[in-house]
Amino acid sequence: MNYEVSVNIMPHKGLLDPQGKAVHQGLNKIGLNQVHDVRIGKKIVLHVEAASADEARNIAEESCKKVLVNAVMETADISVAELA
Amino acid sequence: MNYEVSVNIMPHKGLLDPQGKAVHQGLNKIGLNQVHDVRIGKKIVLHVEAASADEARNIAEESCKKVLVNAVMETADISVAELA
Repeated sequence: MNYEVSVNIMPHKGLLDPQGKAVHQGLNKIGLNQVHDVRIGKKIVLHVEAASADEARNIAEESCKKVLVNAVMETADISVAELA
Repeated sequence: MNYEVSVNIMPHKGLLDPQGKAVHQGLNKIGLNQVHDVRIGKKIVLHVEAASADEARNIAEESCKKVLVNAVMETADISVAELA
């Protein structure tokens, strides 16, 4: 079966996010002062062939550990959906 | 009130995603052949001060239009949650 796995990767809470800070300043500069904080991460969508949703999640977790995520600086959040 | 607005930005469906393709090949090269497609986008989390969730969404949409999203190449998906 085919699964669509979404991996949301964000910088750790305590860590400085210079990209987000730059965007935050940019938004304030054009008058969007209601925005108080910006943090920027990645969203990676994998199409995975697996026997079950659990297996698809395991494959995604392995991908995260080996390639996608830098655990020192980022946290990943994985969600699995079955594809029609 | 304070709202946390998540903006998920992905490359348009039909468009080539070279970054995703590179990661896809990398995953296959280390033996993760169950992964058939990879697309990479951005996840941007805004903290917005607004009177209502609708207002927070409007501010996020304006931010997307003016700064965050390149509508020619990307689609954005916005979700709003109230912060405690």
